[in-house]
This record gives sequence, structure tokens and C-alpha cells, in this order.
Amino acid sequence: MTIKANSPVKSSENNFIQKYQKRVQEHDTMLCVGLDPDITKLPLALPGHGGAIYSFCRDIVDATADLVCAFKPQIAYFASERAEDQLEQLIDYIHQNYPEIPVILDAKRGDIGSTAKHYAREAFERYGADAVTVNPYMGFDSLEPYLEYPDRGIFILCRTSNPGGSDLQFLNVGDSSPPQKLYEKVAYLAANEWNKNGQVGLVVGATFPAEITRVREIVGDMPLLIPGIGAQGGDTVATVQAGKKTNLLINSSRAILYASRDQDFAQAARKAAIATRDSIRAV
Amino acid sequence: MTIKANSPVKSSENNFIQKYQKRVQEHDTMLCVGLDPDITKLPLALPGHGGAIYSFCRDIVDATADLVCAFKPQIAYFASERAEDQLEQLIDYIHQNYPEIPVILDAKRGDIGSTAKHYAREAFERYGADAVTVNPYMGFDSLEPYLEYPDRGIFILCRTSNPGGSDLQFLNVGDSSPPQKLYEKVAYLAANEWNKNGQVGLVVGATFPAEITRVREIVGDMPLLIPGIGAQGGDTVATVQAGKKTNLLINSSRAILYASRDQDFAQAARKAAIATRDSIRAV
Repeated sequence: MTIKANSPVKSSENNFIQKYQKRVQEHDTMLCVGLDPDITKLPLALPGHGGAIYSFCRDIVDATADLVCAFKPQIAYFASERAEDQLEQLIDYIHQNYPEIPVILDAKRGDIGSTAKHYAREAFERYGADAVTVNPYMGFDSLEPYLEYPDRGIFILCRTSNPGGSDLQFLNVGDSSPPQKLYEKVAYLAANEWNKNGQVGLVVGATFPAEITRVREIVGDMPLLIPGIGAQGGDTVATVQAGKKTNLLINSSRAILYASRDQDFAQAARKAAIATRDSIRAV
Repeated sequence: MTIKANSPVKSSENNFIQKYQKRVQEHDTMLCVGLDPDITKLPLALPGHGGAIYSFCRDIVDATADLVCAFKPQIAYFASERAEDQLEQLIDYIHQNYPEIPVILDAKRGDIGSTAKHYAREAFERYGADAVTVNPYMGFDSLEPYLEYPDRGIFILCRTSNPGGSDLQFLNVGDSSPPQKLYEKVAYLAANEWNKNGQVGLVVGATFPAEITRVREIVGDMPLLIPGIGAQGGDTVATVQAGKKTNLLINSSRAILYASRDQDFAQAARKAAIATRDSIRAV
């Protein structure tokens, strides 16, 4: 039972956040392309059998690589298709061909320490991701095993813009005055207690720019991964302004991946990615 | 890209919770055996190559099947070893040989609706699990896709007994008097707003019996999956009493799986499982 180590161990002087920041400096882009390969939406011209998910994502990667600060594959789309091997191949392809682009595995893991070690091993050793998204509900020790990889990063779910996002995240917590929301508490803990070695970022949805502003106030210049631009309706200008125009990873998935279902899908994706990158730049 | 459907679609008159309750009635057991196959702890006599995880778990299943109300494989231990195929095989084996025993996939998934659909497909169609553990941080719409499978169940993380479990779960929320903790709010939402078709249970750690009592007050007779007995130190008597002795799934993993590392590991696991089942029964 050997694990294929997708990426060599890197020195901690070149950790995930530095890799991301270097990329932003050199390419002037805060666009993150989310790789959510829904097989019911793949281009009609792709082969319908083994490897189609990988082929599609690889073509999207090649068409958009010079435009992005990161790629973010979402593991559920691979797992539901028994295509973990294609996810391995895809991340390996990105590392081989675009070694300067960080890969964020969107997995939203959350479990106790002994189990989290195995999830960390999955994300960082098996898949060779540079960072992984995680869920804070089980507290700090459920995040620590990821932080034991000094060159990797985590993005902690903070405020999500799905309809039920407010069910818990928008509850007032504690006894502070003015009252603090749960997502604010998570932001506070992430910035002040959990981020011991500069490896932590937050996930904050694009739908509520005022809350991005609030998170930015709490966490300083911590990287914010912001999904919800494009298909999910977030306003780019308001989002980038709220994030103080720095250390942002503005994610777009569907609006880029499925810009066309015809043979021109990669060119259409590139065009959509350029438009999104430029609308972020223009702010 | 075809999905192997591990289990046929069942009628909703025989849903997960009914399957669990029937099992408890017929076998008088509330013991759930957690299948967390850590390869560094497997019996020394097992073959060290492909299939060892499956072989080990299958032997544990055969040695304990008549003693349990459910099996709970933990997906991280398979994913970190690229052994998803062995997890498929294992669940298939349980369904084929012990069709009356429900299988709870411990995956603690949590994501927005469109992605959660893929996680639900992974758990219920690919792996054929009867139920899956899920994380409530993203709210109700992140749970709905699982509930669209009428014969399956979810266990929502409520109160976990790991060291960081209190970081968020024990915060006072809302403005009620007396103050309500976040885990109490989750229990309330689960029982009163989210459990529309009797498919929902909660995960509540064994370390804090007073909190099990509190959850039981809030949720009535909803099934409670309780990890933390055995290696994690929870007190069986206090736990079972706090849970009102009904609709409990008391999980033990390590204390049973690794009772011995020698050739007698299956017999040792059986012995440990009998002792745990009986200590639950005795209350």
C-alpha cells in the first residue's frame, strides 16, 4: 500500500501563502478557477468514457493557466464518479506544467485529530494539494493536523453565501457588546488563536460584501478565498472593494467551465476567465 | 463512467431509522462498531499489500456482526490509502452477508447544495451507505440533498468530545434566557426544523453525559450516534443513562479493532465487542 506523493516536500520558506502572493505579484491576477467537473455539463464533444473528467479539466487548466492565481478542484465531483485517479492525475498535471500555480483542494474536511491526520495525508500526500478547505465546527484540534505540514495551507469556512449559510453562522454568540456573529467569532479565532505559522486563510462568500468588509477588519491581510462570483451572482466590484483589494482569491467555477458546451469550450472558458480577471483588476 | 450501485433502492417504508430500530429489537444491542482501519495498527499477520484493509475489516465484521446494531466505516482511513475500492467492497460485503445491519458512512460532509448532491451520490449510490454523518455549519440547504433519498439517513454533528469541540459548540448563541449553547441550537434545529421525514439523527460525544441528557431533552427519541466509548474514555453507564437507554448507537472503534495485533485479533475483537455490548445492556 504505497502512496503516490504527487508533489515533493517543499521548504517552509516557500509556503502556500508565499507561493500564492508571488503568483499574484507576477501575474497581477486574483482570479481562482474552480474545477467542478459536473459530468452532466461537460462539452458534448468529449469522450463519454474513462478520463473525460481529467481531459476536460486539463483543457480548462491549459486555457486559463496564465490568468489565475490558483486552481481549486472540488473533490465531490470526482468522488461521486469514482474518479479519484483523475483528480490525482489533474493535480499532478498542474504541478508538472505550472509549478508556480497553487492548487487548493476544496474538500471542506472536519473531523477529530486522529482522523484529521488521515484527511491531511489524503489532501497533501496523496493529492499533493498546496492547501485544503476545512470546516471549523469541531474546533482547533480538528485543524492542527493540516498545519503540521509547514509548507501547506488551510482555508477555514467562515461565512458562506448559500441560502442556509445564516442558520448557524449568523447567530449572535458570546456576551460581547455589540453582539458578535458566529462567523465573526470564527474569523477572530482564525486570526488570533489558530494561525500560528501563517498558513491560514478564510472562505467568505461573495454575496454579502458588508460581511467581507467585517471579516477583513477582523483578520487584517489574511488571504480570503471568495466563491460566489459569476454563476452564484456575487458582485465583483463590491467584493474586491470589501476585501481591500489585496490577498483575495476570487473564485469562479461554473461561469468559466461551462461558458460553452461546444468544441470551443476551452476558448470560451478563456474568454470568460479574461473578462473576470479584468473586472477584478479594474477595481 | 458508470457508478456501481452498492445497494438496490429500498422502499421508504423501510427507511434507515426503521432498519436500525428493527435491528435493536431483534438483537438487543446498541453497539455500533466503527471501522477505522489504521494501517499502522493492523494485525501483523495480515498481508501487507493490496486488500489488507478490506480483509481486516471483513474479518472484524464477521467476528462482531451478531453483536452490533450498525457498522460505521470512517472514510478518511480508506481515502488516505487510495483504498476507496476496498471501502466499496467492504460495504458491499456487509450488505450481501448481513443485509439487516445498517451501514453508516462516517464522512462528516458539509458543502453547498449543488456540491452536496455529489457527496450524497457518493455516499448513497457509489458506496450504498444507509446513512452518512454530516456537518451543520453551512445550514439546512447543505443537508437537503441527502434527505432526498427517502430510505437513507443523516447524523448531524451536534456535540463532539474532542478537545476543541467546545471552541464553537459551547458558545452561547441567540438571546434566549437561559442562554443556549450552539450545540443545543443545532439539536433544536435538527429536531424541529430539519427532520421533515424522520431521517435525522445526531452525533453527540460520550465524554459529557450531562450534555447527552440535554440533547435528549431537546430532540425527544431521535437516534443519537455516540462515539467516545472505549479508547476515547467515555463512561458507558453514564452515557446510556443520559441517552434514556433508547435509540442510541454507542460507537466503539479502536478498543475493538485493535484489541489484539496477533493472529487472534478477530477473536479478541469479538470478546471486546461482547463486553461492550453487555455493559450497555446491563444499564
